[in-house]
Amino acid sequence: MAHTVPPTIGWSHDDGGSVRMIDQTRLPGEPVMLDCRDVECVARAIERLSVRGAPAIGCAAALGMALAAHRSKAADPHAMLADLRAARERLAATRPTAVNLFWALGEMDRVIDERAADGVDALREALLARAEAIVEDDLQRCIAMGHHALELIPPGANILTHCNAGALATAGYGTALGVIRAAHEAGRGVHVWVDETRPLLQGARLTAWELRTEGIPATLICDNVAGWVIARGEVDCVVVGSDRIAANGDVANKIGTYTVAVLAARHDVPFYVAAPVSTIDYDLASGDLIPIEERSRNEVAMLGHRASAPVCPDIAIYNPAFDVTPHELVAAIITEKGVARPPYDESLAAMKNRQDSSRPREESGRGGPN
Amino acid sequence: MAHTVPPTIGWSHDDGGSVRMIDQTRLPGEPVMLDCRDVECVARAIERLSVRGAPAIGCAAALGMALAAHRSKAADPHAMLADLRAARERLAATRPTAVNLFWALGEMDRVIDERAADGVDALREALLARAEAIVEDDLQRCIAMGHHALELIPPGANILTHCNAGALATAGYGTALGVIRAAHEAGRGVHVWVDETRPLLQGARLTAWELRTEGIPATLICDNVAGWVIARGEVDCVVVGSDRIAANGDVANKIGTYTVAVLAARHDVPFYVAAPVSTIDYDLASGDLIPIEERSRNEVAMLGHRASAPVCPDIAIYNPAFDVTPHELVAAIITEKGVARPPYDESLAAMKNRQDSSRPREESGRGGPN
Repeated sequence: MAHTVPPTIGWSHDDGGSVRMIDQTRLPGEPVMLDCRDVECVARAIERLSVRGAPAIGCAAALGMALAAHRSKAADPHAMLADLRAARERLAATRPTAVNLFWALGEMDRVIDERAADGVDALREALLARAEAIVEDDLQRCIAMGHHALELIPPGANILTHCNAGALATAGYGTALGVIRAAHEAGRGVHVWVDETRPLLQGARLTAWELRTEGIPATLICDNVAGWVIARGEVDCVVVGSDRIAANGDVANKIGTYTVAVLAARHDVPFYVAAPVSTIDYDLASGDLIPIEERSRNEVAMLGHRASAPVCPDIAIYNPAFDVTPHELVAAIITEKGVARPPYDESLAAMKNRQDSSRPREESGRGGPN
Repeated sequence: MAHTVPPTIGWSHDDGGSVRMIDQTRLPGEPVMLDCRDVECVARAIERLSVRGAPAIGCAAALGMALAAHRSKAADPHAMLADLRAARERLAATRPTAVNLFWALGEMDRVIDERAADGVDALREALLARAEAIVEDDLQRCIAMGHHALELIPPGANILTHCNAGALATAGYGTALGVIRAAHEAGRGVHVWVDETRPLLQGARLTAWELRTEGIPATLICDNVAGWVIARGEVDCVVVGSDRIAANGDVANKIGTYTVAVLAARHDVPFYVAAPVSTIDYDLASGDLIPIEERSRNEVAMLGHRASAPVCPDIAIYNPAFDVTPHELVAAIITEKGVARPPYDESLAAMKNRQDSSRPREESGRGGPN
């Protein structure tokens, strides 16, 4: 477990309650914590990627709703519902692609429906309890994914990953990096190729930092180099996370993921996706329907939130944040409930209602995101 | 023609002779000229990429040899030959991949063999004349490539290019960008997708600047985005340059070129290489034998010669400068003598002795690099 990386995000009881997170725009380097005391702060933290990664965004949204309830001065449930609606609207407008955001807001909706009649104090407590459960469940789901993935990772594997699907992208441990952590902890002797992941360098800043922190052997490469190391036979498998998976297994993830999948397919290298079931959007038949966020040109004209890149002024810039990898390029989707294989329309549908098969705390009876 | 971009490199008669070049590490922005008064300066300019691009490196090496002769204090040919041998050794050690460097040094060897007996002054003049002819020929070859390539570029084409194979990579006009310039000048209404080209951002700094300077519509993307725009049908063809082409048509070019070629092949987008015949290494049977330069980790940890990138400290970094694209992914190789098609072992062999078919100045009788 990622004891050396502080918790990505959680509830703090300081100052009457706040959402505390690592400010990921400040990494690498000594982690700087950001304390949000209102929903606007949480929404902006999501937008500027102080907190990022689909599962972590879900946690942030859930905690943001709990924060809205705590900050609400409403004396009766009716008035509080208006505050919560405004908070929900603000949080839902932050980032369009990661479905976990909308899944988490849906979970909070359910709590509101069930508990609003019990009064404002009960509703506050219930929202916080559910948000904290989502955070804790997320960590447990990542650990379960790592466990399931052990069957896929051979000893001595060279694993290529793109972006950061690590502890920082989740409540802890990570999805793709959780798979890598589990293999490392199991003594598989893995080595990781880390795509730097332009424009915001989540690989060079975050994944490299996590792997260094935990002593997992890793080599940083420019995104350009992935094809070359794959072609030279230096990659045994690819593992990435996802921001949204369509019902047919098409996978939205950080821009550049599709490129890696095409290169892996050309060289018969298995391409794996690690994501909790909450990432699967069963309402979307295929990846064509996934909304792709387009972000500011300034991200390309600078380097990882900080330095200004020497880009030709006035040149037009196209900066999509995600791409979609078609299911035929995906060898397996690793979830907390097990490993799904093609055909995904069947295997992912089966995941929907399956009991978690290896959750260490399953006996606690806390439900997953069914 | 590229009248708005100053000459990349040439001979200056100031100060008893010097090699004058645009310092490409200082672009984009107002061009800053670098005057080299000795061979060491030229060699360092090649090593730190003040002058880069295979044909321009060839020009730099030829001018460097002329400079060595001009700076030599030798009173007799025998002593001058020792100075020239030392200069040749220094220049040959700068960069291993671009074969044009070795081709240009070979051309100067021939002049030395032919003219050494005529005395030091004659040898000085002959070396300078040959170096200046190589520079002028390079420009004419680029223009010829652009002319030949017109058959390949449809009206309204969206053309993707990687790195900078432009005026700055040659004596002027460019190889891949020469093809694009010619199509633009012919009124084809092209639009260019410019890969930023990490780590040193030759696309964002140099190609974007050249295209802006000449008013050719262009959009900058992170290298990660090329796969996505190709997959969405927004690319009609890819045109890149090359640093060395094996006899079988395997193409060494800037790292990331192989990735683009694989993506183009998957989507039936033709992948073209534009390079003078001097880029073809007829002594190498296949691309496996091309030496691949590995460069400093600092290039990845910084942004285009200047800003420091926020990369995790102490992480291992692998930074190859080139990759090799196998010939089966190459739809055509555009040379100054015409367009070569597969099978390349035959078509490239035929190029070797073919007369230039469209060199505007062919009647001047100045020979090409046979």
